[in-house]
Amino acid sequence: MERSLIESIAAVLPAGGTRIVRGVGDDAAVVRAGGALCVTSVDTMVEGVHFRLDDGWATAAEVGHRALAGALSDLAAMGAEPGEAYLALGLPAGFGQEQALELVGGALALASATATTIAGGDVVSAPAVTVSFTVVGWAENERELVGRDGARVGDLVGVTGRLGGAGAALAILEGRASQCIGQTAALERMRRPVPRLREGRALALVGAHAMIDLSDGLAGDAVQIARASGVRLRIDLEALPLQEGVAEVGAALSVPPWRLAAAAGEDYELCFCVAPEERARIEDALRATGGAGVSWIGHAVSGTPGVSFRDARGNEHRLEGFEHRW
Amino acid sequence: MERSLIESIAAVLPAGGTRIVRGVGDDAAVVRAGGALCVTSVDTMVEGVHFRLDDGWATAAEVGHRALAGALSDLAAMGAEPGEAYLALGLPAGFGQEQALELVGGALALASATATTIAGGDVVSAPAVTVSFTVVGWAENERELVGRDGARVGDLVGVTGRLGGAGAALAILEGRASQCIGQTAALERMRRPVPRLREGRALALVGAHAMIDLSDGLAGDAVQIARASGVRLRIDLEALPLQEGVAEVGAALSVPPWRLAAAAGEDYELCFCVAPEERARIEDALRATGGAGVSWIGHAVSGTPGVSFRDARGNEHRLEGFEHRW
Repeated sequence: MERSLIESIAAVLPAGGTRIVRGVGDDAAVVRAGGALCVTSVDTMVEGVHFRLDDGWATAAEVGHRALAGALSDLAAMGAEPGEAYLALGLPAGFGQEQALELVGGALALASATATTIAGGDVVSAPAVTVSFTVVGWAENERELVGRDGARVGDLVGVTGRLGGAGAALAILEGRASQCIGQTAALERMRRPVPRLREGRALALVGAHAMIDLSDGLAGDAVQIARASGVRLRIDLEALPLQEGVAEVGAALSVPPWRLAAAAGEDYELCFCVAPEERARIEDALRATGGAGVSWIGHAVSGTPGVSFRDARGNEHRLEGFEHRW
Repeated sequence: MERSLIESIAAVLPAGGTRIVRGVGDDAAVVRAGGALCVTSVDTMVEGVHFRLDDGWATAAEVGHRALAGALSDLAAMGAEPGEAYLALGLPAGFGQEQALELVGGALALASATATTIAGGDVVSAPAVTVSFTVVGWAENERELVGRDGARVGDLVGVTGRLGGAGAALAILEGRASQCIGQTAALERMRRPVPRLREGRALALVGAHAMIDLSDGLAGDAVQIARASGVRLRIDLEALPLQEGVAEVGAALSVPPWRLAAAAGEDYELCFCVAPEERARIEDALRATGGAGVSWIGHAVSGTPGVSFRDARGNEHRLEGFEHRW
């Protein structure tokens, strides 16, 4: 969906009542509730737009997993502890009960692994399979949460895990890149992404200044941090950590592998900004989660808010998010 | 959507953690949060299934209003105070920005009138206009909320407002009933239903035992109270309060008007059960809201859980919810 439409809708929404701590414009909304903070995000995936169920793209269970993972990833990017999920499911005529239960089962397995309760929802008829998850996370106080707007000049920019897997998988599934070593990892990344909840929580507690999840791709998402924080991010393209299989697919497509890592979406890793003196503490904290590691990919400077991507020769590249056609 | 599919999905969802006060199976889920209770419901409307935008059925603004009204109606049925709403919007190619803003504007006007903040959401491409609202309401404690499961033998059954308007409007719009006196009220009811939030809150505070909103129609919804509470509801069809225009449309369709009031959906009134000695207090409390009045339509008896509908001659009628073809 065009960002201009989303932005024009966001622009007409009023700021909201006294309960709203953070409204539209971050990974999730934050609402004060009793003594707690309620962190809420919505993520929708539509057959033919965000996934396909035919030709071995993804099973119904993987679609359920992926839709919930996409929503939980927003909570991870706030540093919130996941609580409940609500499912709005649209199913076309002919989508059988068994397949519907398989889809819900895929989401339930991820819910169970992340201590999330699917507490309600709605099932309606729709022309295409539509899976919308509203997820609710909880925090004790605002200091536990991280928005997009706190990056400071001098901050280091880090990412969790490895990038480019989902973009490489798409190229393989569309027949644009032939099968290659490492494709299993790339396909798994696209079909069953892992929301970085423990990593996000650890980064928030150690004091990350700003954080976002990579759903539209680093190029599309990092610019959100830059604009909200009023800083310029300089990203070193050669420092991007590549998922297994991405180099091979890049070679097959005749594009530098960093293009898949920076411009393709749906890797669901976290991108964050931290004070340089916190580097070792961040590395220790992420190691302690036992999950994804960290790579340092750039830093924040003063200048026009935005992102500069530079290759090894120092050449700048203009990249957008969600580039899937090379 | 078939109820069997919804029930089979509900059956695989685990009971959930210690935070869950009420999970799947009521109008909304209830979650303990800090010192407050968080009441959440999801409602989705799809073009071609729940509404049409062509031929003068409804404007984009009315679709936005109606989708939010349907979701808020679930909070009304719990007796919860509305707080926030989250919008998942699916838009087909060619649905312009102006129309999208009109749709959001319709929802915003209702949000403003009900002290609800639209605090977040998601916009994606979809083959048909899809409007899913997750609404969150708040309550101080469990005693303030009403489920479906508290009806007792001897209770009176009441409904707010007037019924059959949405069913009559559908018949008019589909050309099955010609234009008639009172059609304006019926069409307005279908296009801009009013969630009975003040009435629901008043009924909860006065001590209603069970409550549900009439989205599928009295026949489809009252049976949910009956089953959850383990009682039989006896409904007097001649006592159903008819919306203006319903008698005329019934005559044009050659069906008794109570059929439109009991079997058609989407009137979004509340059906509730109260102890008979509370009758006067309930009437006073509803009068004080300045909104919809109350009609007493039957009572709860022991017997097989379910609903008996009787006409003036004492004949029983078998009715289902969402009957729209007479």
